[in-house]
Amino acid sequence: MNHLYVVGIGPGRTEQMTLEARQVLDSCDLIVGYTVYADLLREAFPHKEFLVTPMRQEVDRCRMALKAASGGRQVAVVCSGDAGVYGMAGLILELAVDYPDCQVQVVAGVTAALSGAALLGAPLTHDFAVVSLSDLLTPWEKIEKRLRLGAAADFVICIYNPSSRKRADYLARACRVLLEELEESRVCGVAGRIGRQGENVQVVTLGELEHMQVDMFTTVFVGNSQTRIIDGRMVTPRGYRL
Amino acid sequence: MNHLYVVGIGPGRTEQMTLEARQVLDSCDLIVGYTVYADLLREAFPHKEFLVTPMRQEVDRCRMALKAASGGRQVAVVCSGDAGVYGMAGLILELAVDYPDCQVQVVAGVTAALSGAALLGAPLTHDFAVVSLSDLLTPWEKIEKRLRLGAAADFVICIYNPSSRKRADYLARACRVLLEELEESRVCGVAGRIGRQGENVQVVTLGELEHMQVDMFTTVFVGNSQTRIIDGRMVTPRGYRL
Repeated sequence: MNHLYVVGIGPGRTEQMTLEARQVLDSCDLIVGYTVYADLLREAFPHKEFLVTPMRQEVDRCRMALKAASGGRQVAVVCSGDAGVYGMAGLILELAVDYPDCQVQVVAGVTAALSGAALLGAPLTHDFAVVSLSDLLTPWEKIEKRLRLGAAADFVICIYNPSSRKRADYLARACRVLLEELEESRVCGVAGRIGRQGENVQVVTLGELEHMQVDMFTTVFVGNSQTRIIDGRMVTPRGYRL
Repeated sequence: MNHLYVVGIGPGRTEQMTLEARQVLDSCDLIVGYTVYADLLREAFPHKEFLVTPMRQEVDRCRMALKAASGGRQVAVVCSGDAGVYGMAGLILELAVDYPDCQVQVVAGVTAALSGAALLGAPLTHDFAVVSLSDLLTPWEKIEKRLRLGAAADFVICIYNPSSRKRADYLARACRVLLEELEESRVCGVAGRIGRQGENVQVVTLGELEHMQVDMFTTVFVGNSQTRIIDGRMVTPRGYRL
């Protein structure tokens, strides 16, 4: 049986990868991924063969990986963060039905909700929801409904893909939806380029967030009703009696 | 300035820890944690001093760690999974205001939502919510509301702490709440003792889940309207055209 690994490499720095991910990549002879993520790995794995394809060619990329694995190569498809959270694990498993000689193994990684939270403080110590603002594959109405219900449920909300060149105003639109449910002073956090050059965090209010410009390498956190700023960090208390 | 590290050690096996977590633990001379998690680490770090306290003594445990760090020791507070997701990072940051000479650094780890998802397949490739059924610190009405709104929003729902000795029927109660919104055939997944001896996964329906007995080391996944079983794996398609 041939093996295909789908590996979450964490946010950026090699140290933020799990030992398991590292071992799998060490054992593979072909690493397949989106250009930006492959570039993060070239330095740590200088002798590996890389197969990179640009964004929006996910289906082709996954088929190439399955074909190579099916042909007997040791292949890892890499995803930034986790392999499953908006990652390639689902697509690979969907396509793998055409390659019955391939066994797919998913290797988890630290997704941006966790790495961004660690930089900001501790926003996710209570129930939370993760919502992507990308409407390439999801109708905007559905995204809006999830934001609205997530806020009504008093979840901490972690927002992925808050912006892109074509969607420069999406974060502002999301904030306006949230402001129908939540107060302007709600504590929010922004984590940019986590684990990469230019890493940055900011703690702001929801009112301020509406007017911020962020790029596509940013993860946004909207606190729940209990979230506070403690010594400049964003903290959602779990509720222990101190 | 003294440093206190709050470290997520992943689900269980040492390889599921990040390299950063490993390096931090290597550099510390005191590791503080709940008995079960400390036991997972003793083998990998045989020469370290451990300070363990049982469950429900979280505030004392964190104060001891802060005091030791404030006294100049290199201290790591360890949490299973991630340091922030229902972990100690929030409590440490709350208590750290009394120890202004201590700088707290949070080191993220792979939480059970991610490690469980990887074992089951790819349930979390779309927007999801994480809800704990523990009502020690959260009123049950709030938990129920979050389940209800999470289901209405068509989130994949990942359930932590589905059971304990005193709360043997909580998962069944949660299922009955979800069944008001969702059909009995909704695809669900159960991941038990992830990364530890006795690791197990099962893909079931929501109707079957209602009648399952699970222990406290179990993480439960309730699919969204698109979640399917593919070759025995639980997969939430992201929506790519194949």
